[in-house]
Amino acid sequence: MVTKENLTMLTDFYELTMANGYLESDMANEIAYFDMFFRRIPDDGGFVIFAGLEQIVEYMQNLRFTEEDLAYLKSKHCFSDRFLAYLRDFRFSCDVWAVPEGTPVFPGEPLITVRGPLMQAQFVETMILLIVNHQSLIATKANRIVRAARGRAVMEFGTRRAHGSSAAILGARAAYIGGCAGTACTIADRDYGIPALGTMAHSWVQMFDTEYESFRRYAELYPDNCTLLVDTYNVLKSGVPNAIRVFKELDPPKKGIRIDSGDITYLTKKARKMLDEAGFPDCAIVVSNALDENLIDDIINQGACIDSFGVGERLITSKSEPVFGGVYKLSAVEKNGEVIPKIKISENVEKITNPGFKTVHRLYDRATKHAIADVITLDGEEIKDDEAYEIFDPKAVWKKKTVKNFYAKNLRVPVFKDGELVYQLPDIKDIRAYCQEQVGQLWEEMLRFENPQTYYVDLSRRLWTLKHELIESYSD
Amino acid sequence: MVTKENLTMLTDFYELTMANGYLESDMANEIAYFDMFFRRIPDDGGFVIFAGLEQIVEYMQNLRFTEEDLAYLKSKHCFSDRFLAYLRDFRFSCDVWAVPEGTPVFPGEPLITVRGPLMQAQFVETMILLIVNHQSLIATKANRIVRAARGRAVMEFGTRRAHGSSAAILGARAAYIGGCAGTACTIADRDYGIPALGTMAHSWVQMFDTEYESFRRYAELYPDNCTLLVDTYNVLKSGVPNAIRVFKELDPPKKGIRIDSGDITYLTKKARKMLDEAGFPDCAIVVSNALDENLIDDIINQGACIDSFGVGERLITSKSEPVFGGVYKLSAVEKNGEVIPKIKISENVEKITNPGFKTVHRLYDRATKHAIADVITLDGEEIKDDEAYEIFDPKAVWKKKTVKNFYAKNLRVPVFKDGELVYQLPDIKDIRAYCQEQVGQLWEEMLRFENPQTYYVDLSRRLWTLKHELIESYSD
Repeated sequence: MVTKENLTMLTDFYELTMANGYLESDMANEIAYFDMFFRRIPDDGGFVIFAGLEQIVEYMQNLRFTEEDLAYLKSKHCFSDRFLAYLRDFRFSCDVWAVPEGTPVFPGEPLITVRGPLMQAQFVETMILLIVNHQSLIATKANRIVRAARGRAVMEFGTRRAHGSSAAILGARAAYIGGCAGTACTIADRDYGIPALGTMAHSWVQMFDTEYESFRRYAELYPDNCTLLVDTYNVLKSGVPNAIRVFKELDPPKKGIRIDSGDITYLTKKARKMLDEAGFPDCAIVVSNALDENLIDDIINQGACIDSFGVGERLITSKSEPVFGGVYKLSAVEKNGEVIPKIKISENVEKITNPGFKTVHRLYDRATKHAIADVITLDGEEIKDDEAYEIFDPKAVWKKKTVKNFYAKNLRVPVFKDGELVYQLPDIKDIRAYCQEQVGQLWEEMLRFENPQTYYVDLSRRLWTLKHELIESYSD
Repeated sequence: MVTKENLTMLTDFYELTMANGYLESDMANEIAYFDMFFRRIPDDGGFVIFAGLEQIVEYMQNLRFTEEDLAYLKSKHCFSDRFLAYLRDFRFSCDVWAVPEGTPVFPGEPLITVRGPLMQAQFVETMILLIVNHQSLIATKANRIVRAARGRAVMEFGTRRAHGSSAAILGARAAYIGGCAGTACTIADRDYGIPALGTMAHSWVQMFDTEYESFRRYAELYPDNCTLLVDTYNVLKSGVPNAIRVFKELDPPKKGIRIDSGDITYLTKKARKMLDEAGFPDCAIVVSNALDENLIDDIINQGACIDSFGVGERLITSKSEPVFGGVYKLSAVEKNGEVIPKIKISENVEKITNPGFKTVHRLYDRATKHAIADVITLDGEEIKDDEAYEIFDPKAVWKKKTVKNFYAKNLRVPVFKDGELVYQLPDIKDIRAYCQEQVGQLWEEMLRFENPQTYYVDLSRRLWTLKHELIESYSD
């Protein structure tokens, strides 16, 4: 069902100049490792919801250069014929590891590692970042908004304010992973199974001679989803009374009103009272006016009577922080089968990378099932959960903690082996449920919107030592 | 060349429930007029650059429902068989008027008008808004950034932080319209002719045993675009000296260095001095670190020595204001061939719509060629430029101004007639040039980033009178 568009040429031009350069320098087939990770959580939140892996898989499976692509590249007069011939026969042959979609993740963790011929492992940088940066941003924002709604359904309504078609469609997908109940975006339902819903615009009401007639006609047509938009003229004087009149006349099985403007708290309280007094306590109240987690939190605290939210522009653009800064960095190369760790040094200590081929373990409390800490280790390091394990702050090593009575889980799964998919992509509903479950295993203090508790993300003793040895070797 | 994806089903679900409702109410073929306009300029700027028309044309030309779409819609159990049969034979037959891409436009102006069978004219709402809201947002932001750079080239470098693939590709297109010199996004060059450029990442430098070797190899391969990334280790102690050594050894015809971190002002001044003293005053300095119009303005004022800018995340997401709030509102219906104006009343005076079938005229000073004011008129109203014309503030009608020695231009062009394209889509380079020319005809006071002069957007006497008569008729 899903359109598998060939996005091979959606790449920063430098990936191509570097690839050509590696081939011409006989370095194209050296084996390299790259990690995708991020440094900062948007909105200063407690965690990020990882999303986009399915689209990365599609992208990697569809990687191929068409004759049209080759003709275009030739016209740039900077690529060798040998390179163009290589691209004609291009076959993706890397190994890929990643955390599953819907996982809460933290700064510095290698969310994706690509191992393979330098030229290929470098080339996929742009799309990995584009996809993960976008979908993780929206899934994370959606999760905040859904948590603010405290059990009330949140619908993603932002299509018209999204940054282009894929921002709308995959934004709806990411919002669903983060916990939204559905979307207004029809194609996201057709192609990704995100439940789509929608009723009427103000123009529907305007097209009839009276608001009452527009409501009545709608109730006749859609008794099973009869949510009437009551703010075209005047919510309390006209909209709600006309809705009540129609509900009395036709008694549609599923009744609702939607308010899209004005003072939400005041209007929903009044409307609730009018509906209840008219005998319609089952009529749902939906609101949808430039909402985000902070506004939703506020109006619920003010006692607004709301059953569900439609959230548009502030979700689909992550308005408060529209940039998610995932990066993709070289972490190792192989020489004669041996992994040689690589590090990127920076004046800014936070920007020094973690070297080597790594993975991430999450330690859970056996009693409460809560996540205690994540430990980034070198690949192959085991964390034995039948003995106590000492974790320490990699930036302040004297801060130690001994973890007992825990179980450890390697957060990452193999996704590609020699370019072949070895991972069963989960159903979107399962991803959403997994996200909810995993967020439920975080301590409440991490769920705060303001000043959440910082989660422990530590390095294993071996990784920490390796990193500091490499730093020392550069500081001469 | 351009992929013409069928995005018919990229629509808010309510467009479909309304369409089905109109058909079932025998209203589907009533003739309706809808206007697309916006109310507020992002970043409180002086104007918006209109963009996206080409993609709207493609969308409208590709409007059709596939059997797969119909099967999906049938599965929702809320659409009539008659409606599904109608969709199977759907043919877009509306008339469309729009301002050309690249035009500076202002709040309240009908940028696009769609006239046609209610069901169709309503249906295209979602995509019109999605496309224009996105591309106008980015074109407007790009224009701000390009103006801040005061003649220095600005490259769009944001692909990896864009909100999905179309945000990257069409964002690059919009940025080019707004004045960027090119993009890093390869596919935007292949498909839209936006010049793509790129050189190397830090990983290129890391893959060689020394920085010098990485630079030398690059200069051998790409003498005609030899921009070396000098901040992998240390800009002034290592990067610039190694670049100079390579320039001396190989003398590539086009020399450049790129700095992607650190104190841009300090580093570029020092680097400029080192390059000049080494005999390379022709070596360009490119910088690219989380820039926007304000930072660019600042570092130029501080005397930074920069030849061109690479601008990424803050451009491609319009980070400071990632939402452009264009709307699409019913403005008239036809009964027996007569146009009946419609108005949407609101408590918020700014939200009351302008009724009727309208267009926009721009009045230019004959002597200076500067734009003086825009006047929204009813369709068919002429503005004679051989006599004085009185404009007035529609919100404060006593504020009047008599315009003399001007010429008037109808800003809009017919795009579709009965569903047939009647507009020759301009080349992207011409759109960019048109934008530059039109912005050049605005008064300097409107180009300020902070507190720009508000441009006059007035209503013709006839339109103003019509609007106020309609408001009166509702206020009983």
